[in-house]
Amino acid sequence: MTLQKLSKLVAVATLTVSTFAASYSVAADGKVYRLKMAETWNANFPIFGDAPREMARLAEEMSDGRLKITIDSANKHKAPFGVFDMVRSGQYDLGHSASYYWKGKVPNTLYFTTMPFGMTTPEQYGWFYYGGGQALSDKVYSQFGLRSFPGGNTGNQMGGWFQKEINSVEDLQGLKMRIPGFAGEVMAKLGASPTNIPSGELFTALERRTIDALEWVGPSLDLRMGFHKIAPYYYTGWHEPATELQFLVNERSFKRLPADLQTILKSAMKLSAYDMYIQSYHESAENWATMKKEFPNIEVKSFPEDVMKAMYKANEELLAEKAAADPLAKEILDSQAEYMAKARVWTNISDRAYLDSLDNLAD
Amino acid sequence: MTLQKLSKLVAVATLTVSTFAASYSVAADGKVYRLKMAETWNANFPIFGDAPREMARLAEEMSDGRLKITIDSANKHKAPFGVFDMVRSGQYDLGHSASYYWKGKVPNTLYFTTMPFGMTTPEQYGWFYYGGGQALSDKVYSQFGLRSFPGGNTGNQMGGWFQKEINSVEDLQGLKMRIPGFAGEVMAKLGASPTNIPSGELFTALERRTIDALEWVGPSLDLRMGFHKIAPYYYTGWHEPATELQFLVNERSFKRLPADLQTILKSAMKLSAYDMYIQSYHESAENWATMKKEFPNIEVKSFPEDVMKAMYKANEELLAEKAAADPLAKEILDSQAEYMAKARVWTNISDRAYLDSLDNLAD
Repeated sequence: MTLQKLSKLVAVATLTVSTFAASYSVAADGKVYRLKMAETWNANFPIFGDAPREMARLAEEMSDGRLKITIDSANKHKAPFGVFDMVRSGQYDLGHSASYYWKGKVPNTLYFTTMPFGMTTPEQYGWFYYGGGQALSDKVYSQFGLRSFPGGNTGNQMGGWFQKEINSVEDLQGLKMRIPGFAGEVMAKLGASPTNIPSGELFTALERRTIDALEWVGPSLDLRMGFHKIAPYYYTGWHEPATELQFLVNERSFKRLPADLQTILKSAMKLSAYDMYIQSYHESAENWATMKKEFPNIEVKSFPEDVMKAMYKANEELLAEKAAADPLAKEILDSQAEYMAKARVWTNISDRAYLDSLDNLAD
Repeated sequence: MTLQKLSKLVAVATLTVSTFAASYSVAADGKVYRLKMAETWNANFPIFGDAPREMARLAEEMSDGRLKITIDSANKHKAPFGVFDMVRSGQYDLGHSASYYWKGKVPNTLYFTTMPFGMTTPEQYGWFYYGGGQALSDKVYSQFGLRSFPGGNTGNQMGGWFQKEINSVEDLQGLKMRIPGFAGEVMAKLGASPTNIPSGELFTALERRTIDALEWVGPSLDLRMGFHKIAPYYYTGWHEPATELQFLVNERSFKRLPADLQTILKSAMKLSAYDMYIQSYHESAENWATMKKEFPNIEVKSFPEDVMKAMYKANEELLAEKAAADPLAKEILDSQAEYMAKARVWTNISDRAYLDSLDNLAD
């Protein structure tokens, strides 16, 4: 059989499946529920865009076609940072984005993505699902008729690509770095000049030294940006140890679903979020191997201890201000700090002790 | 796309069409599918027993009651280590157990739970879902009309409770330790005397020094066993860095389900497995804090480097024997080793570098 003939067969068979699914669903239940989702990302954005599509596929298959979710990318709805408002108003039923994007609008949304010097991914999932995190998220989002659920974890993000080494706090003075959000505030407190630059212009800005450094995600998404071709130093992470995207849900849209479809939607979101964590881990491992093979001179570095101490202190001061200004911020930060203290002891005697004890084994 | 891949797509698509046709008529008749599951654990076994129950609850709710799964515990079916045979024969449709329990019957099942000096939990999930692990598992299990899927991860297991310190390889000579399975073989190669003792007798055996040491799981399940009350040393892990339980599925039972219920069952298994990893992480953090509070003198220790080197060497030799004896064993071990090499580099520059860089920050 030729490739072309096989391709046609696949197309025909697939068509038959979907036609059958549609007619069956309508006949058996009488009602197909259609939900619209807006994502912050442009079309074909890898990994981040895979999670909501996997979610929608699972929801449709598990419901035998009774729950259909269509996804509009940012290049269609034109409002990547309008997702919160569009889901709040009901223009969209669902969103896929990140909680910390809304901190200018609702300050306490900051705490549900990741925090500088904060929890690692399994620690943070432990806090969210078993340590009170979900209830605190609901406190923040329910005021707006919304709920927010984990939407996929990138794992530990790298500290970024640098044109020059950072050997002291002085080296941060006037450093022009693309580092948005709260981590940018920390850097600014230490004398750096955080800037934000559209993603399409980042490569040129770093190449021409318009900026001295930038952080993006990690090897999983940095490879295609090409930064490894033009910057010699790749610093390890401190500012986003467990970046969790979010599924935003309009409460009214959710309550209109029958109970079985509610459980299907929640399970599909939870499962695709966990899956994105593993996909990110995998892609980071693969892509780092590729970068290192193509550019063996890339140096992985960690900031020296006095720089880490200064950033840690600046971060603690900023958090103390936020806790003093808002009782709910204090409640969330206290809950995270208390949980992390317990979970970190466990991390240190389990995975970390294991990795430490493997050094030099094969000598 | 290769011809082979296209052929598979055609086969899958065609199968889906006919399954859909079946599901239409059957579902319209209001048929409820009932599956029976046998678990290796006794009733009310925490965490391990929670995963299959969460799975069954999700499957029933998502299917609106069309998929009902009943679970028989070991104290009912009386054959904790007969789960493989009972699911193979169709006496049960599903099992909840651990793959390495079947190594005496099917040697290559050993490799799908965790391996001494092997991958951590996110690394191993990466290998299983994105690095070829699932296909290799299918190769092993399909010969028996079975499939095996992740059934919940304990996270990194502790090396065990010891009455005396281990300062050298000599200290392992004649050491009476409850450590079953492949890790026991490694210990035996170094002169220790691994024994297996029913769980109900472990506390007394350790207290009366009938044994010198034992490993169980980690704080998540060790707390209720009370070992921390009678042994002063808690060693960090080397032998089970990512223990994954399994859902065993009888292929015939699975294929009798309509397509939507197949996806529901697979998603419920996958989701409850991920959840057990996070639940284990949480319970370990909480329970370790409790143990340490009640018995502040417990010492957490890691085996010294020469002991680790000797165990690593013994492990490598045992694996080389298995690879030499069986091409499929070699294929699996090579796949794991290659994946781990890449993934470990990423682990070291991400989570591990992050944790390392946090030392002394608050000074």
